[in-house]
Amino acid sequence: MNKVIFYHAGCPVCVSAEKDILKLIPENQVEVIHLGEDKTKIIDAEKKGVQSVPALVLSSGNVLHINFGASIEDLK
Amino acid sequence: MNKVIFYHAGCPVCVSAEKDILKLIPENQVEVIHLGEDKTKIIDAEKKGVQSVPALVLSSGNVLHINFGASIEDLK
Repeated sequence: MNKVIFYHAGCPVCVSAEKDILKLIPENQVEVIHLGEDKTKIIDAEKKGVQSVPALVLSSGNVLHINFGASIEDLK
Repeated sequence: MNKVIFYHAGCPVCVSAEKDILKLIPENQVEVIHLGEDKTKIIDAEKKGVQSVPALVLSSGNVLHINFGASIEDLK
């Protein structure tokens, strides 16, 4: 089964959302990627349709943008 | 245990997010409220901090606004 990917950038909105998400979804089903620390993954995230963080990319390919921490453009 | 409340208004963004959310969270832990059909609950949702739908209100009181379907003001 494909994992859900949670993209974030370490901002307060992201960290708060991450805690909430990891309470809802079993931790072994979520891959957490910190785009602020790993900028090589930004292109990947964009290709998946991520426009802002925090965001959750589902195995279906759907992207759930959760609240608003930062635009992906601002992370580059 | 308090349930998570998923507020939506039947718009395409909401319906798509609802399907995704219900795949991630066990259905018996989520209460789904359609604010378009039950306008008396709009005030309730606002008090909980919901600013737009679809949104997920967690048992912690945190509100996760997911993508953007409609502003709560527009539902009134």
